[in-house]
Amino acid sequence: MAHTDRVRQILSWYGSDNPGTRANLARLLNHGALAGTGKLVILPVDQGFEHGPARSFQPNPAGYDPDYHVQLAVDAGCNAYAAPLGFIEAVADRYAGEIPLILKVNNSDTLSKGHAPCSAHTSTVDDALRLGCAAIGYTIYPGSSLRNPMYETLRALTHEAKQRGLAVIVWAYPRGEGLTKDGETAVDVTAYAAQIAAQLGAHVVKVKPPKNFIEQAEAKKVFDRYNIPTATLTDRIRHVVQSAFNGKRIVIFSGGEAKGTDEVLAEIREIAAGGAFGSIMGRNAFQRPRAEALKLLSDVMSVYRSAP
Amino acid sequence: MAHTDRVRQILSWYGSDNPGTRANLARLLNHGALAGTGKLVILPVDQGFEHGPARSFQPNPAGYDPDYHVQLAVDAGCNAYAAPLGFIEAVADRYAGEIPLILKVNNSDTLSKGHAPCSAHTSTVDDALRLGCAAIGYTIYPGSSLRNPMYETLRALTHEAKQRGLAVIVWAYPRGEGLTKDGETAVDVTAYAAQIAAQLGAHVVKVKPPKNFIEQAEAKKVFDRYNIPTATLTDRIRHVVQSAFNGKRIVIFSGGEAKGTDEVLAEIREIAAGGAFGSIMGRNAFQRPRAEALKLLSDVMSVYRSAP
Amino acid sequence: MAHTDRVRQILSWYGSDNPGTRANLARLLNHGALAGTGKLVILPVDQGFEHGPARSFQPNPAGYDPDYHVQLAVDAGCNAYAAPLGFIEAVADRYAGEIPLILKVNNSDTLSKGHAPCSAHTSTVDDALRLGCAAIGYTIYPGSSLRNPMYETLRALTHEAKQRGLAVIVWAYPRGEGLTKDGETAVDVTAYAAQIAAQLGAHVVKVKPPKNFIEQAEAKKVFDRYNIPTATLTDRIRHVVQSAFNGKRIVIFSGGEAKGTDEVLAEIREIAAGGAFGSIMGRNAFQRPRAEALKLLSDVMSVYRSAP
Amino acid sequence: MAHTDRVRQILSWYGSDNPGTRANLARLLNHGALAGTGKLVILPVDQGFEHGPARSFQPNPAGYDPDYHVQLAVDAGCNAYAAPLGFIEAVADRYAGEIPLILKVNNSDTLSKGHAPCSAHTSTVDDALRLGCAAIGYTIYPGSSLRNPMYETLRALTHEAKQRGLAVIVWAYPRGEGLTKDGETAVDVTAYAAQIAAQLGAHVVKVKPPKNFIEQAEAKKVFDRYNIPTATLTDRIRHVVQSAFNGKRIVIFSGGEAKGTDEVLAEIREIAAGGAFGSIMGRNAFQRPRAEALKLLSDVMSVYRSAP
Amino acid sequence: MAHTDRVRQILSWYGSDNPGTRANLARLLNHGALAGTGKLVILPVDQGFEHGPARSFQPNPAGYDPDYHVQLAVDAGCNAYAAPLGFIEAVADRYAGEIPLILKVNNSDTLSKGHAPCSAHTSTVDDALRLGCAAIGYTIYPGSSLRNPMYETLRALTHEAKQRGLAVIVWAYPRGEGLTKDGETAVDVTAYAAQIAAQLGAHVVKVKPPKNFIEQAEAKKVFDRYNIPTATLTDRIRHVVQSAFNGKRIVIFSGGEAKGTDEVLAEIREIAAGGAFGSIMGRNAFQRPRAEALKLLSDVMSVYRSAP
Repeated sequence: MAHTDRVRQILSWYGSDNPGTRANLARLLNHGALAGTGKLVILPVDQGFEHGPARSFQPNPAGYDPDYHVQLAVDAGCNAYAAPLGFIEAVADRYAGEIPLILKVNNSDTLSKGHAPCSAHTSTVDDALRLGCAAIGYTIYPGSSLRNPMYETLRALTHEAKQRGLAVIVWAYPRGEGLTKDGETAVDVTAYAAQIAAQLGAHVVKVKPPKNFIEQAEAKKVFDRYNIPTATLTDRIRHVVQSAFNGKRIVIFSGGEAKGTDEVLAEIREIAAGGAFGSIMGRNAFQRPRAEALKLLSDVMSVYRSAP
Repeated sequence: MAHTDRVRQILSWYGSDNPGTRANLARLLNHGALAGTGKLVILPVDQGFEHGPARSFQPNPAGYDPDYHVQLAVDAGCNAYAAPLGFIEAVADRYAGEIPLILKVNNSDTLSKGHAPCSAHTSTVDDALRLGCAAIGYTIYPGSSLRNPMYETLRALTHEAKQRGLAVIVWAYPRGEGLTKDGETAVDVTAYAAQIAAQLGAHVVKVKPPKNFIEQAEAKKVFDRYNIPTATLTDRIRHVVQSAFNGKRIVIFSGGEAKGTDEVLAEIREIAAGGAFGSIMGRNAFQRPRAEALKLLSDVMSVYRSAP
Repeated sequence: MAHTDRVRQILSWYGSDNPGTRANLARLLNHGALAGTGKLVILPVDQGFEHGPARSFQPNPAGYDPDYHVQLAVDAGCNAYAAPLGFIEAVADRYAGEIPLILKVNNSDTLSKGHAPCSAHTSTVDDALRLGCAAIGYTIYPGSSLRNPMYETLRALTHEAKQRGLAVIVWAYPRGEGLTKDGETAVDVTAYAAQIAAQLGAHVVKVKPPKNFIEQAEAKKVFDRYNIPTATLTDRIRHVVQSAFNGKRIVIFSGGEAKGTDEVLAEIREIAAGGAFGSIMGRNAFQRPRAEALKLLSDVMSVYRSAP
Repeated sequence: MAHTDRVRQILSWYGSDNPGTRANLARLLNHGALAGTGKLVILPVDQGFEHGPARSFQPNPAGYDPDYHVQLAVDAGCNAYAAPLGFIEAVADRYAGEIPLILKVNNSDTLSKGHAPCSAHTSTVDDALRLGCAAIGYTIYPGSSLRNPMYETLRALTHEAKQRGLAVIVWAYPRGEGLTKDGETAVDVTAYAAQIAAQLGAHVVKVKPPKNFIEQAEAKKVFDRYNIPTATLTDRIRHVVQSAFNGKRIVIFSGGEAKGTDEVLAEIREIAAGGAFGSIMGRNAFQRPRAEALKLLSDVMSVYRSAP
Repeated sequence: MAHTDRVRQILSWYGSDNPGTRANLARLLNHGALAGTGKLVILPVDQGFEHGPARSFQPNPAGYDPDYHVQLAVDAGCNAYAAPLGFIEAVADRYAGEIPLILKVNNSDTLSKGHAPCSAHTSTVDDALRLGCAAIGYTIYPGSSLRNPMYETLRALTHEAKQRGLAVIVWAYPRGEGLTKDGETAVDVTAYAAQIAAQLGAHVVKVKPPKNFIEQAEAKKVFDRYNIPTATLTDRIRHVVQSAFNGKRIVIFSGGEAKGTDEVLAEIREIAAGGAFGSIMGRNAFQRPRAEALKLLSDVMSVYRSAP
């Protein structure tokens, strides 16, 4: 489809990238019910790896089947579907070309404990190309004592992805020895994580909706001195988006833990009002019965469609 | 532009480098308001990564936007603009060719604590070439227990940069288990850090203005026995410049923490009087309103233009 | 220097290139007396290799010396200086950084006869980087039975140059078994050669001013049917420029054999009127006494400066 | 120059090395005032990195300048000049070819404390070739818990150096958790360190003059049982030289800390009498005023010239 | 030895080369009886490969022995000895370090006929390094239909040699389908061959003394129009040296076919008077009895020593 003005504007922020990468960014922006709006709703399903199958799929057992998710993403009109290697391989032969695929190239399981948080690097740019993916996804844990090796693996992957014409999506999840539990979703930390991901060369940054809490003493002084508003989620989203190159990098937000439909939609409205580029919604979608999930995703997309 | 005698003299110190590297050193020396004088004022913006976005950009919120900084550097007549990968990618398609760019290839965030200081290696010589940069920048932390791996990563980057015709700028920031807090800016330690950076093959060395304090007992004996003057900042700058191959390596100084305009200029005058090749001025520039920043940078350049 | 609107417009045609390559195109466009106008006058000196030293340099024996030419290019305010490896190596240590250098990476001598025309590939992209060059230059001979190996060597060089941030200039000289002697400069053939060079990925195309002659029978029918004007050199230049992507690739013209000053300037006026982006002027410059050469180049630049 | 019988004899011990490496050993043996004698006096200047600039150079401030040292080595008739990358790069373009250069490829600073001693690997065999060096120098710390990684880095460097025709000089400095402070210069330990360096493939071994002290209980029994003489420095030097393959590896001795001229010469006489191949004399040379340094080096060379 | 002013001047023409390459050029210039004069007499022995053993060595059967030649070069005070891999390997273990060695890395035998002339590429830069050589030597045959593959092999060898710090000597022998027999030594062709070798990046060019004959019709016009003097050998040498970058590349001349001593010396006097940098003298040296050869080489060196 012809690019809308908004898509052109967004692509103009990625002028140092080659046409291949920009075309794949455009594919993400131009697919599904939100095509052309500059907004994205992405279905990610990596919880099987991250939390185990029963926790992830038993609430809606259809989700044990990899076909279920990608078909849900297609039917809901999501912009893209993201998953680890196995789930992508299970469907790419039929769905690559029907919906943009995002290969999540690192993953972390929860069977081993007591380590500094660090995901395993589990698939490659070559895998993404052979599977017809539009982008790779990579998780960093700012705050972990292993952050530097993570950033350095991302450097190599990003370099290769950009050379081969893929887009790069970074899941920025603050976590580890440097942070309190509350600090993981503190507004200053979330904004900092978005900045780090963008500085590392991410095209799309994914963070969690920040809480009204400030972790770092030095940051607290600045928030206080300049009266940076953080009272509402919308305030905080606005700060995070601003922190990602003044809104010149696509920032999307996860839905967080599963919860009630009204709660989800209320949160999305606040997120959208803050200037978010969209949501990445996993458990809240696939753990519901299919009809409910389709309805919810449709409602979420409506919120973004009418956002400023 | 035709090289001035001073630029030719400076380039003559780098006779072991290939013409490509020397041309990029010349580009740094021949751009902006100080072109041809042998002095440099560089705008670096890596604080978003190093300190987080709010602390860095809220004092002048225009700075959340990557375009703001490079345009500031251009308009102020800086010799170059230095930043991490993301900020460079955000502007290189429009600004490479308008102002020399320096890709800061390692970075350190402050979300993780309690480790020996060590930056992550976040971008490459290949990135610098594809983005049209004149130089790479790299930070070392002499005093850290991880100094050796840092020096060794720098070795590989320097070798590749010199082969491909790029210049190498080393930020030498003493820090870590081997040093007291005061020792980080002690005059003996700063001079030692400049020497280390130069011995590692840096073309340009960046250090902090040293304080009138001597950290190492063995060094103290020498300073005392030979009456090395350290009372004034000018004295100390002179010692640091001498310590960088008797002034045959370009040494530039950071402005340190943000402060008042008069203070900044007074300090620059002392730095310039000590034989500094210039300043790298980040927060003191971009955290001010744009008009003030332009005025300050212009005043700083005037100081260097009239320095010996 | 800040890009002019015209330079920005020209650079916008090369949006698939990385910032490094565009910066080097900008360097060519922003140097010398025509800086910023979108016009170029380049001094090429490969005749020593192509025609032998006496034929090339005896008319002005200062030209035996490699320093002479690059200094002439600097003093005349040319946009760039182009030469084979030896001539570039002889001056790059002093001139890289003072004027954009173009490494001519293939060359052909005239001591061997009776073969399909084909240049030898004599230097590399790595050489261009270590010598601080802004671009590589490569000659193709459309019409030669060896055209395909030439295009294929160019493919590899272009790929590497574009990855490493260099620009690519193609000398397109129709020649060989497929063409009559007159056909080598026929208007249809020159336009075809410009099209081939542009299709091969050249950023800048260099051809000879076309004669009012049509070589190919099939082309003749079209020129006749559509009354493509070819009577004046200006007409023919316009057709060639149009044939290089409707003027969206930089096309420059050689001056051909040495001749009188008035003749040269008259020809340049016609070339400029046809929309040429500039001239590459070797023998007509360096075979004259230096003062005359400077005057002629200055006059040529004046013509281009006042061209539409 | 034609090899003397002594040089031929020495070279005959290195018959497994290729002619390139032997030619570079010959270069070391055939340069300067001791050319052809089989003795060497080498000027090393790595103290700027190892001890910091003021401690190293303030006693004779001319030494802040890299040109000073290599010119001192040339004028004194030293066999070679050894330094880290930065000091070598600062002079190689003018001095490579005038005096054999030794690139010290690892270095250790003293700003960081409390670690097992280990130098950083700071330059490469490729650097040595491009800078025209005859040899690489590498420090090992037998006694350190990190000795094995050091030996293994040396293995790789030695393999490459020997393939490319360079000589390898090993600074063997016992140090670390395994040794008492006195043990670092114990005669048994020094001899052991020389043996290790030779076994690791060093062509030239550099150790400190050993003290009359035996560190290892097991060694002590042997020294006692066989009455190995250690009373005089000459005795101890003889044991160390014997320990380096019965004198079939070149062993040279450092002068240690700066001291008075008479002391230095007295010590050199004892070292020479013990069969040392020469001295490596840094601080005792470059920390003196130039005239005194030239005199001292000349006197030292005289001692070696008249040694057996 | 310390560089003379003349050696410094010559080295200044090679400022784009790394210090390693310049050191090896200095080695060639600083060895033997002509050390420091800027003149060279080199003994080359590749006739065994090129013409067969009996033709080469029977006139003086000592020459069947590889030791004979290198010892002759040493005893005569030649600047260097050049030979193919086998002859170099036969002596390098004893002579590398005593005299600069030049590895002739391509060779052509005369057992196969009827082909376009082209040497085989028979040894490598790695061989040169392991054998302790200062330079590689390579023959090109301008005029051959296979000239382009030759130039392209030379490109790769030159690139590697320059990276590894070796010098490159090109034997430029016009030959092949493009030339008459007389044309092979025509003055225009010889000058052209010297230009080609220099443009290909040779540090030292070796050609045959040109005859008073002009091969190319286009060149003839220029020689006539500008009255380029060619009557005497001195005239012609001057033109060839000028054709090698106005004398800024080292050009040396072969002695050609064996002839009488007086004839040889008379020719050398004319060559030297024309500004030649020296001679490469094979058959005229090694086919004479040793005493005569030493005398002749000594006389040749005297001629060069007293040349301007």
